[in-house]
Amino acid sequence: MAGTEARAGANTFGPRIMSLADYLAQWSEQRDALTVTYLSEAHKKVAAELGQLLRAAGMQVRTDVIGNVIGRYEAANPDANTLLLGSHYDTVRNGGKYDGRLGILVPLALIEHLNRTKQKLPFHIELCCFSEEEGVRFPIGYLGSQAIAGKFDPKNLDATDDNGVPLRKVLEDASVDLKSIASLARKADDLIGYVELHIEQGPSLLNANVPVAVVTGIAGAVRHRVVVEGEPGHAGTVAMQFRHDAGAAAAEMILAIETRCLGVPSLVGTVGQLLVPNGAMNVIPGRCEFSTDIRASTNEVRDAAAKDILAAFEEIAKRRGVKVKAEEVLRMSAIPLSPYFQERLKAAAERLGVTPLMLPSGAGHDAAMMSALTQSAMMFVRCGNGGVSHSPLEIITEEDADFAARVLFDFLLNLAEEHNA
Amino acid sequence: MAGTEARAGANTFGPRIMSLADYLAQWSEQRDALTVTYLSEAHKKVAAELGQLLRAAGMQVRTDVIGNVIGRYEAANPDANTLLLGSHYDTVRNGGKYDGRLGILVPLALIEHLNRTKQKLPFHIELCCFSEEEGVRFPIGYLGSQAIAGKFDPKNLDATDDNGVPLRKVLEDASVDLKSIASLARKADDLIGYVELHIEQGPSLLNANVPVAVVTGIAGAVRHRVVVEGEPGHAGTVAMQFRHDAGAAAAEMILAIETRCLGVPSLVGTVGQLLVPNGAMNVIPGRCEFSTDIRASTNEVRDAAAKDILAAFEEIAKRRGVKVKAEEVLRMSAIPLSPYFQERLKAAAERLGVTPLMLPSGAGHDAAMMSALTQSAMMFVRCGNGGVSHSPLEIITEEDADFAARVLFDFLLNLAEEHNA
Repeated sequence: MAGTEARAGANTFGPRIMSLADYLAQWSEQRDALTVTYLSEAHKKVAAELGQLLRAAGMQVRTDVIGNVIGRYEAANPDANTLLLGSHYDTVRNGGKYDGRLGILVPLALIEHLNRTKQKLPFHIELCCFSEEEGVRFPIGYLGSQAIAGKFDPKNLDATDDNGVPLRKVLEDASVDLKSIASLARKADDLIGYVELHIEQGPSLLNANVPVAVVTGIAGAVRHRVVVEGEPGHAGTVAMQFRHDAGAAAAEMILAIETRCLGVPSLVGTVGQLLVPNGAMNVIPGRCEFSTDIRASTNEVRDAAAKDILAAFEEIAKRRGVKVKAEEVLRMSAIPLSPYFQERLKAAAERLGVTPLMLPSGAGHDAAMMSALTQSAMMFVRCGNGGVSHSPLEIITEEDADFAARVLFDFLLNLAEEHNA
Repeated sequence: MAGTEARAGANTFGPRIMSLADYLAQWSEQRDALTVTYLSEAHKKVAAELGQLLRAAGMQVRTDVIGNVIGRYEAANPDANTLLLGSHYDTVRNGGKYDGRLGILVPLALIEHLNRTKQKLPFHIELCCFSEEEGVRFPIGYLGSQAIAGKFDPKNLDATDDNGVPLRKVLEDASVDLKSIASLARKADDLIGYVELHIEQGPSLLNANVPVAVVTGIAGAVRHRVVVEGEPGHAGTVAMQFRHDAGAAAAEMILAIETRCLGVPSLVGTVGQLLVPNGAMNVIPGRCEFSTDIRASTNEVRDAAAKDILAAFEEIAKRRGVKVKAEEVLRMSAIPLSPYFQERLKAAAERLGVTPLMLPSGAGHDAAMMSALTQSAMMFVRCGNGGVSHSPLEIITEEDADFAARVLFDFLLNLAEEHNA
């Protein structure tokens, strides 16, 4: 096998990736913040720019009716199979430059390099720049990858944006034949799989001092809305031992979630919403409301935790003489990612001298949709600034971008060797 | 000493007190709720009714410019000193029939009995029906007893009700010479003291199966507004051990308050307000806000608890990598009540076969103001319905009302014997 340096020297890709991210970040709906939501003017401009960049890298480019920009870098043999790479180019409001786009720009830099050095691979590459993943303008998410994966739900068309405009009308105004969306579904027959790079959106890599992780699966989630009902009372006149304080009971429940999830790999539990309605400083809370969000990389780990947590709620409520009601409001299955690709991505990183972390993804990604179509994999790249994302503080280093690119390049070349063999 | 039954037989007072409470409860600002706020039509009507009831019981009655109705039941000797009894006749919105009024109606029933049986005591009794204590219409409270105790703050006149009408205008429209309020201050020279009966507004007597308590003091309070600042993060992507969750930190702080206060006599700590601002189900809270209210019957017990609690907040914040800021927003001193009167009230109950509880009052009462004027005491009467007050569910039994009246009567006769001796 050729040495890594022979394949692509260190720092071949980093500067280009960083400059491409900066370049695309100049289009936004807001003057002082990066906001690119579905089919806004900024969104259309970024799509057009991506089309030019992909064409310049030697790809055949098509933009589909849902806004995906797809570049095809052809193999020498037209009958070859196809590997899909990509991620999304929309952003949250006041977001960062790397969430989504890194998974487009790293493959783009590699294909630019292949094109420049006139290398062909024994498989086609299609670089999928998905139009929408964040669910900001319409409360859906994954619009682009849903369509490609054949998972687009016609009910999506009824969703409305903040101005009350339904997706249906937005697409019709853009002269989209709504029936044609179904035809975007990619056939699985000739696909090798789908690989997505993404920033980690958390501090695990930063804390472990490792630049990349191979993602083991996309977490399953279950959410509840919880209401605790106790007895309101005068803050001065009801002795502590006679209280049935809904707020204190909720506090104990919140800590029970934390305790149950801490130390279990891939398991996370979050109380994001918390309120004593109409609370007064001198009144013992008679009611407290909170949300739970429990995720794990397998449904089994998630469900075992949720069961224990709900049992803990009941125990706490009974002991404190309060009532608790937990209503399940969301349930998403965990999505395993391709063990075959996981192994190959891990080996590629190791060939470059790094043992990658093996991390679950707590957040959803386009790979969650694509895994319904073809075997899929993800690689995480280290975030700086404590792991913050969905924020202008979201950063990565040029070195990490370069390293991630070289890992993906090594993965591709290794896959190519296998296909040539 | 004459036997108790000779002084006033069981059930002498109970039915009268209950029927008086029902009678006064017919005037309200709301059709289906008992609401009598300061200087409303219902309030003026109740004042007029009280005046008639007091006159009919042989008292000289005056209504002062702040709305207090004061009845004087004269001793045989015009040069005798004066014992003050009473409480307030206003209510909270949708309140109960006994909060405040019980402290008027029990003495009224006793004086009716004295008058009916043509008994005079060796001291004058002034029955003070205070016009305002609850602080509902104007956010002040204790307006009536403030004026009598010489503690009326002229700044009160600038307070406005929900319609923006200042107290100053309300009084001027009632032709009150504002300067005359200061002259309502009672001289202390000829006073023996002040005794107030009140419902407990808590479950301690109910749980102990005891009808009355002697109040040992009125709690001092300190309140804080607390802000916890952590790091917001994605509920799916930040592993538990890397979180700086402001909500979970607040939960631990709430339980620290509970743990510190539990089991310490007279000490109570309450988190009445609790909120994760702009919380989302899938976002780790970056901020959580809550209130604290810590009370005890002495400033020392209160302050020791507050110090420990604030130290616990700091320890929790440091360990969790979050910031906590606690701003003190209220501090009220504990008010000791007369040990001399406490002893005599206790002895009176014991003579009637009951060892009363000795309870601190966590809530403020007119006695808190009156103690600035003269030695003051309070007796609590058992509430039903779990101890609820400020609610239409507020109840007491006729038996308890009767027993409380007989204790007060015994106390008065015993005090009379001492004054005659």
